This record gives sequence, C-alpha cells and structure tokens, in this order.
Amino acid sequence: MKKFINKVDNILVESLSGFAKAHHDLVELHLDPNFLTRTNKAQNKVAIISGGGSGHEPLHAGYIGYGMLDAACPGHVFTSPTPDQMLMAAEAVHADKGILFIVKNYAGDVMNFEMAAEMLPFEHATVLTSDDCAVVNSTYTTGRRGVAGTVIVEKCVGSLAETGADLQACKALGDKVNHRTASIGVALTSCTVPAAGRATFDISDTEIEMGVGIHGEPGRRRETMRPADEIIGDCVEAILMDFKTRQLQPSKKHEALLLVNGFGATPLMELYLIYNTAAKLFNLHNLEISRSLVGNYTTALDMAGASITLCLLDDEIKQHWDSPVHTAALRWGK
Amino acid sequence: MKKFINKVDNILVESLSGFAKAHHDLVELHLDPNFLTRTNKAQNKVAIISGGGSGHEPLHAGYIGYGMLDAACPGHVFTSPTPDQMLMAAEAVHADKGILFIVKNYAGDVMNFEMAAEMLPFEHATVLTSDDCAVVNSTYTTGRRGVAGTVIVEKCVGSLAETGADLQACKALGDKVNHRTASIGVALTSCTVPAAGRATFDISDTEIEMGVGIHGEPGRRRETMRPADEIIGDCVEAILMDFKTRQLQPSKKHEALLLVNGFGATPLMELYLIYNTAAKLFNLHNLEISRSLVGNYTTALDMAGASITLCLLDDEIKQHWDSPVHTAALRWGK
Repeated sequence: MKKFINKVDNILVESLSGFAKAHHDLVELHLDPNFLTRTNKAQNKVAIISGGGSGHEPLHAGYIGYGMLDAACPGHVFTSPTPDQMLMAAEAVHADKGILFIVKNYAGDVMNFEMAAEMLPFEHATVLTSDDCAVVNSTYTTGRRGVAGTVIVEKCVGSLAETGADLQACKALGDKVNHRTASIGVALTSCTVPAAGRATFDISDTEIEMGVGIHGEPGRRRETMRPADEIIGDCVEAILMDFKTRQLQPSKKHEALLLVNGFGATPLMELYLIYNTAAKLFNLHNLEISRSLVGNYTTALDMAGASITLCLLDDEIKQHWDSPVHTAALRWGK
Repeated sequence: MKKFINKVDNILVESLSGFAKAHHDLVELHLDPNFLTRTNKAQNKVAIISGGGSGHEPLHAGYIGYGMLDAACPGHVFTSPTPDQMLMAAEAVHADKGILFIVKNYAGDVMNFEMAAEMLPFEHATVLTSDDCAVVNSTYTTGRRGVAGTVIVEKCVGSLAETGADLQACKALGDKVNHRTASIGVALTSCTVPAAGRATFDISDTEIEMGVGIHGEPGRRRETMRPADEIIGDCVEAILMDFKTRQLQPSKKHEALLLVNGFGATPLMELYLIYNTAAKLFNLHNLEISRSLVGNYTTALDMAGASITLCLLDDEIKQHWDSPVHTAALRWGK
C-alpha cells in the first residue's frame, strides 16, 4: 500500500484539518467528536445534516455551505459515524426549524443516525437515500444502497431549506428526489482501505465488477472487461429497467439529470467518454439530458471505476438543482 | 490495461464530445482540426488560447469560459497539438486585440505554437509556463517544465484580459505569475498511456519518483516510500530552495497561494492531508497561505501522486485570482 499518510490512525484528523484550513471561509472543524459545520451558522431554516464513513470525499463535508448542508459527521474510513457526532452537530446548527438527517442506506449509518434522532431534543426527520439499483440487500445493507444520487438529494433539499421551507417539505422533497433517482457503478480495480493495508477484493487485469458498491462491496456479477460502450450500455439498461419496475419509465420525452461519477482513480477523460455514450443511450429512451454533472463526487478511496446516476427531473427538482450553491465541491450561481 | 475506452484512436474525440455536450453552455467543440472555443465569443479583449497534449484534464478545455481561456487546442494523449489547430482556434476567437498563447514549456508544444504564431495574421504574444522546479531540462524539455502552475497563469491572465487590457499587459502578468510560481510533483505509480497499453515506467510497491513530470518523465530521483510528512517536507524544501536561488525568498511574512494538485488517482482525502502539512511548513518560512486550491487540476491520466505549487502573491495577482471565473473546472463569483 502506497498512500500519502503518516499514521493510519491520524489520516482522518489530518485530512479534515487540511480541508477545514483550505476552506475556512466555508467550514469549521470540531474534533472529538468529529463534525464540521458552516463557518457562518444559518438562521431560520431547517438544519440539514449528513454523514457517513470517510473515504467518499468530497461526500459529505465538501457539500457544506450555502444551499446544501449545515453540517457533516465523518466516520472513520468506511465506518459509520457515532451518535454523539450527530448530536453535537445538531446542537451546533439547530436553527429553530428542526433537523433533517440525510443518511445513505447502510445498516450502521441507519442505526447510529436513528439512535441520535431518538435522543434529539429538536423536531427532526430523516431522508434515507437508496439510489443504487444494482442489488437489493448486500454486505452492509438491507434494501438498496445509497450512493452518488445522495449528492442530488443533498443539493435539492439544501436549496429548499434555504427558502425557509418547513421540515416536512424538506423531507418530502428529499424522498421524492431519491425515489426518482437510480445509480449503478462498475469497478475496474479494488480500493485499498488504509487500516487494512491491502485491496478490499481481488480482481484480475481482465475483469470488472458490475454493480459494485462504494465500499467495494460485491455488485451483480464479475464480468470480463469489454469496450466501454458495452459496459455503459449495460449500466443504462439496468437503470432503465429499474425505472420500468418502479413504473417511472417516461412514455414521452422527459428531462433528466445525468451524473457520471468517478470512484477516485478514473481520469476525467474516461468519465466524459462515459457521459458521451450514456447521454446518447438515454436519449434513445425519451430521456433528454438537460442537466449534467461529471467528476469525482462520491468516491471509493482509490478505486478505478465509475457510476452512472439518472434523476428524472420535474420543475421543482430543476429549480432546486439550478439554485445557487456555495460549497467546496459544488459551486454555482453565487 | 483496463480503461473505459472503445478504440484507442477514438478516445479523444469521444471524450471531447462528452465534455462539449455536458458543458454546451460554456464550450463549443470543433473537429478536424480539433479545438474548443467559448460558446459565446468574447468581444473587445485579448483572446487567450492554450493547449497541449491531452491526458491532463481538466487542463486546458476545463478552463474555457468567462475569466479564463477563449479557446483550447487538445493534442492526442501526451502529444503536442499541431499548428493548424492553433491557427483555426485563433481565427475563431480573435476579437481585435490580439492573441495570447499560454504554452507549457515542452519542446513539441513550443515548436508548434511558434509555427502557428509565425503564420498568424493577428498581433500575438506567448507566455511560456515553466513552474516545475524539479529538474532543468528533461525528456521533452529544454529548461523547466510547465506543470500545475499553468492553471494559476491561465486564471490571472484570463481575468486581466476580461478588463480589456492590451496584449502586452496580459503577457507581462502571465510572465510575472509564472516567475513567482514553483511546483514539484511526486509519483506513487506510473500512468498508462492508452496507445501504449502499459505503464510508462516501472516503479515498485515501495518506491516513489520524486520530481516526476506530468507525462511520467523522470524527476530528481527514485526514493523509498516514506511517511507523507517526510515526502511533503522534501517538496516544500525544493520549492523554498528554488525561490531562494531565484532571489524570491520572502524576508518577512508574505501571502501565498498553495495549490495541491492530484495527478488523477489520488483520493481527495490524501490531497487534503498533503495540504495540511504543506501549509504548516510554508508558514514556518514566512509564507502565509491566504489562497488555496486542492484537487485534480493538472493530471497525468491515471497516475497516483500529487504536486505542490506555491505562488507568491501580490495585490495584482490576488485581484486576478479572486475575480469571477466561470469554466467547467473552476467557477466562482459569477
């Protein structure tokens, strides 16, 4: 294992310290328990808090700021944060309109956010993201996994919260965006968790893992490496099939957001090639890609691979996707 | 070699097509010869054109837009673009105040941009970037190499050009920023050029290449892998020594911009850890880091590794760094 680290135990705090220093205008770091909040506390809004295991950067701390999150609770690498992190974060950002947790659907995250919620002295609600259509139930999950679509949920809910909308409206929008979103990922290599010091899974030079999770969990099947367009074709097919199963398939031309997400070690050049093919294929199925995001937004440490996420837009989602956002990893309109 | 590609010969056009589709509000793609221009042609300003071999994305096409480039000319992977690309790009973006080429100092790029410049029917000038302090002369270079500091040059010159400044002023600022900037990189792994199909260089699981170039060219020396802080310490030392040699060493507290750039396969978590240590070390040498950029801004395909760039700020550079920019890869203030 070759990584830019000093001691495995210190990675998280050293990295968070660098993040908070580089973005001191946006975020403030609190240690022990670890959480990050906006530098300038927002007032009179639902406070949006997310979190989860580290190693998926820029998720979630990179999305703290105007128009998105109020706080993020990072666990150790691929490890759920603990309830005291969420409680302290909630205490710090609560602004009289309640707390909304956005939680990716993994057993540990769900349990710890639930424990925190039960102890919260404020009005609260939770949006569980479960956009990964690759598998139902898996290593760490009952039900579908929450993956890159979480970024779209956080962006839209964060936008609505800035308008002063109430807790139930924020939760409803988050649930809607999650419902209208599907993702699937493919790994070309494993990731390496620093504390383990070796690859999470074995994969040969001619294999790919179709439907991989963002912790390197197994997907649908191990396949032989093929030309990109064939792999992308299967991913697009999986998403379309998921929409069909859930009766979301558009019968006429419908606008959609296409997110091509790198897992950490895939060059931008390849991500745009994937985007090019995926956009063409979705277009053949009545899906007009009117919003796009291409880059490393929900990573799996140093995994080579990518995921494709499609969100079926409506006027409300478009409005909240387009609205100003000012965070370390997403910024526009302000 | 596992990459998301179809045919090696088509990678560039497929990727550029995806890029242009995802960012159609910002860029327009022209094929054969290949170049990209702003979707909305700017008027009454010096037109800023950059280019170079592909594989360094988001450099340069990701920096087309308000406040930065007017056009970019991508060559094949790690291969210089040809003079007809620059000539056609210049023709497309010329706006009556002349053309400024920003060229990374590699023999092929320099020669081809010079050939284009000689044929240009417009007033023109060139800024050569040469921020890499690792080596003087190398595989493709006479003199120092142009690396990640090029982004800072493009940002500042692009900002000045938007004010209507003339060609000589733009060139002068570009030369100044380049002069006040130093970079050094370190590779943990090689990159793999698609057309070659194998790693550019061999490096073992316990070695790093200190001072590596962005095409995998040799740096200063092959070293044994060590804790991050030791590697970062040597990088910071190299930059300080370079400033000292060039009599740029600040004798009292001086503001600086710190860019920690990933080469393509290094997790953001590690880049922020590098930032944390580098910022601390520079602070010990009168350098106050008042501007920061951390991420993949000048990559080397799928290389694991990172570079550290320091730019000594003054009021003019700060003003042009802070000014609004709206490109695919850098966006703020607008």
